[in-house]
Amino acid sequence: MSAKVGVIMGSKSDWETMKLACDVLDELEIPYEKKVVSAHRTPDLMFEYAETAADRGLKVIIAGAGGAAHLPGMVAAKTILPVIGVPVQSRALNGLDSLLSIVQMPGGIPVATVAIGNAGATNAGLLAAQMLGAFDSQLQGRAQARRDRIQREVLESSDTL
Amino acid sequence: MSAKVGVIMGSKSDWETMKLACDVLDELEIPYEKKVVSAHRTPDLMFEYAETAADRGLKVIIAGAGGAAHLPGMVAAKTILPVIGVPVQSRALNGLDSLLSIVQMPGGIPVATVAIGNAGATNAGLLAAQMLGAFDSQLQGRAQARRDRIQREVLESSDTL
Amino acid sequence: MSAKVGVIMGSKSDWETMKLACDVLDELEIPYEKKVVSAHRTPDLMFEYAETAADRGLKVIIAGAGGAAHLPGMVAAKTILPVIGVPVQSRALNGLDSLLSIVQMPGGIPVATVAIGNAGATNAGLLAAQMLGAFDSQLQGRAQARRDRIQREVLESSDTL
Amino acid sequence: MSAKVGVIMGSKSDWETMKLACDVLDELEIPYEKKVVSAHRTPDLMFEYAETAADRGLKVIIAGAGGAAHLPGMVAAKTILPVIGVPVQSRALNGLDSLLSIVQMPGGIPVATVAIGNAGATNAGLLAAQMLGAFDSQLQGRAQARRDRIQREVLESSDTL
Amino acid sequence: MSAKVGVIMGSKSDWETMKLACDVLDELEIPYEKKVVSAHRTPDLMFEYAETAADRGLKVIIAGAGGAAHLPGMVAAKTILPVIGVPVQSRALNGLDSLLSIVQMPGGIPVATVAIGNAGATNAGLLAAQMLGAFDSQLQGRAQARRDRIQREVLESSDTL
Amino acid sequence: MSAKVGVIMGSKSDWETMKLACDVLDELEIPYEKKVVSAHRTPDLMFEYAETAADRGLKVIIAGAGGAAHLPGMVAAKTILPVIGVPVQSRALNGLDSLLSIVQMPGGIPVATVAIGNAGATNAGLLAAQMLGAFDSQLQGRAQARRDRIQREVLESSDTL
Amino acid sequence: MSAKVGVIMGSKSDWETMKLACDVLDELEIPYEKKVVSAHRTPDLMFEYAETAADRGLKVIIAGAGGAAHLPGMVAAKTILPVIGVPVQSRALNGLDSLLSIVQMPGGIPVATVAIGNAGATNAGLLAAQMLGAFDSQLQGRAQARRDRIQREVLESSDTL
Amino acid sequence: MSAKVGVIMGSKSDWETMKLACDVLDELEIPYEKKVVSAHRTPDLMFEYAETAADRGLKVIIAGAGGAAHLPGMVAAKTILPVIGVPVQSRALNGLDSLLSIVQMPGGIPVATVAIGNAGATNAGLLAAQMLGAFDSQLQGRAQARRDRIQREVLESSDTL
Repeated sequence: MSAKVGVIMGSKSDWETMKLACDVLDELEIPYEKKVVSAHRTPDLMFEYAETAADRGLKVIIAGAGGAAHLPGMVAAKTILPVIGVPVQSRALNGLDSLLSIVQMPGGIPVATVAIGNAGATNAGLLAAQMLGAFDSQLQGRAQARRDRIQREVLESSDTL
Repeated sequence: MSAKVGVIMGSKSDWETMKLACDVLDELEIPYEKKVVSAHRTPDLMFEYAETAADRGLKVIIAGAGGAAHLPGMVAAKTILPVIGVPVQSRALNGLDSLLSIVQMPGGIPVATVAIGNAGATNAGLLAAQMLGAFDSQLQGRAQARRDRIQREVLESSDTL
Repeated sequence: MSAKVGVIMGSKSDWETMKLACDVLDELEIPYEKKVVSAHRTPDLMFEYAETAADRGLKVIIAGAGGAAHLPGMVAAKTILPVIGVPVQSRALNGLDSLLSIVQMPGGIPVATVAIGNAGATNAGLLAAQMLGAFDSQLQGRAQARRDRIQREVLESSDTL
Repeated sequence: MSAKVGVIMGSKSDWETMKLACDVLDELEIPYEKKVVSAHRTPDLMFEYAETAADRGLKVIIAGAGGAAHLPGMVAAKTILPVIGVPVQSRALNGLDSLLSIVQMPGGIPVATVAIGNAGATNAGLLAAQMLGAFDSQLQGRAQARRDRIQREVLESSDTL
Repeated sequence: MSAKVGVIMGSKSDWETMKLACDVLDELEIPYEKKVVSAHRTPDLMFEYAETAADRGLKVIIAGAGGAAHLPGMVAAKTILPVIGVPVQSRALNGLDSLLSIVQMPGGIPVATVAIGNAGATNAGLLAAQMLGAFDSQLQGRAQARRDRIQREVLESSDTL
Repeated sequence: MSAKVGVIMGSKSDWETMKLACDVLDELEIPYEKKVVSAHRTPDLMFEYAETAADRGLKVIIAGAGGAAHLPGMVAAKTILPVIGVPVQSRALNGLDSLLSIVQMPGGIPVATVAIGNAGATNAGLLAAQMLGAFDSQLQGRAQARRDRIQREVLESSDTL
Repeated sequence: MSAKVGVIMGSKSDWETMKLACDVLDELEIPYEKKVVSAHRTPDLMFEYAETAADRGLKVIIAGAGGAAHLPGMVAAKTILPVIGVPVQSRALNGLDSLLSIVQMPGGIPVATVAIGNAGATNAGLLAAQMLGAFDSQLQGRAQARRDRIQREVLESSDTL
Repeated sequence: MSAKVGVIMGSKSDWETMKLACDVLDELEIPYEKKVVSAHRTPDLMFEYAETAADRGLKVIIAGAGGAAHLPGMVAAKTILPVIGVPVQSRALNGLDSLLSIVQMPGGIPVATVAIGNAGATNAGLLAAQMLGAFDSQLQGRAQARRDRIQREVLESSDTL
């Protein structure tokens, strides 16, 4: 089945974080593609990726980057698909720079920003699932079932304090 | 036609900002409903709103709040629909508190966070349109046309420097 | 004797911090209950916990959470009991996000916020003790005795510089 | 009836903010006293105030200060009563300095910190009411009634969007 | 004479700031061109501008932008010319977001970042002049003369305290 | 010879940092005393220490503390001697809280604040030496000689790059 | 009588703030000189000023600057006299940049830093007075008398709440 | 061949970072000199270095420093050559202090600031190369070839996810 979600990241070193988004997509049986696409080091590839995304059948793009994280915003500028931005934790400023570079987009071009680091990557996968699930009740059901399972785990964890 | 997007805000004073999200929805002909729902002052209404949102036919929820902005995250905890969070600019900390309270969600419950203040509210409307537009080519066309118009305005503005 | 203080936390991983609040309650002989209650993953449990807290005889609730830390504020919205919020140190932003999410509550629903991390958890236990101690002179005496002991320890520590 | 709550502030210029705490106490019929007590300019008065507070019948102290806001923490060091700290919005750093100076207390001496500025002052009054209300069901009823009224106001405000 | 410096900005509203860079270039008799080029709203124009800059004879590019300020970094990714980035003061975060988005570039693609706002724009003009002046002793002389004049003005200003 | 400088710290755990101030005083042959004095845990000792400092012959006080670091400011409020404040690096906020709590004193009561952590402690010793040295040319000579030595070390270090 | 304190500032625009330091010196009858000396625009003057300060009889230097505030630290590098740094409130970052540029000096060269803006300037004057007063009991008496007066004013201000 | 770029740093401990700038200069065959020059500990050397830089044939200066990082700005004040500032990551504040001290220069004296830490040092080397390359097409070619190589590495890295 052709990919519905494109998962891209600015550097291979972001994979450790972005893998968590892919784990969720795997778990919820959402077909996706993944790729290293750097806004600064492969700008033409980035533009081509974003321009052709909708025609290739993608419905959502997840883009992770750190520091002056331009990838999510620039991809969003070149596609009408919704783009989810994951601020990867940076070395000096702990991802605060990544977060502000991704979230503070000017009016006209939104990026759906999630939390810094691992929690954000997991949530990027879930957010993509919920966007698609709004138009796919079976997927929505799987996403809800994942929530129910986690809820049970939380309830049980209390007994072991 | 029944509402596809729910626009909620924590206080009537957030309307000045959140109105910009509604302006975009109006412009792109997306049916929506709007309501003041406070996480802290009307918690039961908030839960009921979130629980019934999917059944009422909503596909996306836009939630704006300032300060310890719990509304987007709590609504996200109670619905499987995608939730867009708008950090309203707060008095003392200029919306940095709103931003962090909305975006730093734990793994499991995502909020699609946009920029602080007016640009964020406009982009919340556009992000909702792009989510819906991924499954509605006519709406996607209108969103693209809006982008094309703004692009032309930018190009023309250069002549008046 | 029935619990006077409820100690809750958003995740089992917060226990390492929140245990320090319980240590103080044990030391001062204050009966308490402890539980994992997640604002985002077990929202209904959270509301039920908060709604029934006063009737179950609790006088104070201590709630610890990290990141977009909504637990203390949402519990505060659902009970008329005083709620003490402990900002658990988060990974990327060191608890600054937790602190702002907990302390910047809107007018109407207060959360008594303490310091980030371990010092805050210890102080949450002491603050609960002081609230109860204002109406229980024996408890107040025990809290004062703890202070006196620590004062002596500080004085003695100076000799070993 | 003798004062149950002491409201103090570091400077007369803090009164504009701290008045909101007193407004709540008036509204909920809680007897209180108010005073300018500066940690830095009247340190002896501060110590005397704190040392005698419990014996004078106070049950809670509300202390507001800005900048290097030492008043709440130093009063807390000299009384076993619970102390609520209100970070007054400062000129250069918008109260972030006030907040950190008040909330980041070391283990042993807690300060129950509320939000920066006006919302915090209002909530300081409410928090004091809730602490007292846990042992005074009539007061608790009045505090609950205030919440109910505000809830109705929020619900009604939605109709005027 | 053909332009040596390209001055671009993300929005016409940045002109108030970026005008100061042009004032310096005028004063030091450096030929330049100016244009509104938005990374997010006119991405193709941006790429074309950057790709052709060196061939058109430009030696330096000055790019100003605010918020998630991607313009300087993306232009830098598409040209081997040195790029100077001016963080325009943003509404909510006072330009801290602009600064971090511009300066925190990954290894491989530098942006020569100057101060937030007006001082930065003036200095962008001077920095361009100093870069060119290193290979143009007459221009270097004019830049030095401007410094000498300002030095005299500072010395004289002291008499009027 | 009686102590000219008093070195105090809020906790024995600050000694690792504050030892560096004492090292400088030893090196420059300035008699000093050292003591753990906690603003929050030994407030009366702190007041007594500050009140008697001038009469005991001290000329300067160096006070180090972390977090809500009230010690330097409160000692300054109780003595007319100059007080040097050392912000000790804190766990969650890396000493930014300590710095703001110490430096943002209100008009009327100054604290001479130095850098966070070890560099600050060393500089506190040097600042005390320079204050005393302005009235003691031999001490001033020793302080100058220390500078000259360090300058030589820097010059020599360059050869080993 | 020859000047004991040198008051310098990086720009004439800093005078509005630095005037408050001079007001205190006037009030306490301390002879001083004042001058605009810019680290960046008049570096040679700055070095000459610092190098000759001790020989001209100065005992303390007060230096105010904003933004990348290098004046206090560079003067400190060129004189063995104690230097007090006043962080002037900057436009974009409200003086946080000024504060960090002044206070975060490396080990070896201290700057006695005071609060951002007006309170800091007043306190710079007082800190100079207290440094000199440690060796001049009459001056110390005048400084103490000023404190006593302000204490009385605070006490009286309480009656007008 | 005589040095075209001067690489200086405030302390030998900055060499670990600044070495990366030299690596780039080596790789691109740009002759350079390197030296420890401290603004605070060797101020006279710093002035002499800056004053003679242009006459010695340097075209660009790269200056790295941490904390209250005055070296880049002070060198910029004493030479008409372009100065690139590298904020070295500091211990307590992770280089945010270094960044603000370097970038927030007043109008009149620019510093071309790059990212905090290693990425910034690499980019300082590249920025110098691009400045020189604008007037040296062979060097520009080598810089472009380096970019092309890195682009290929990014493209290939994607296959190994």
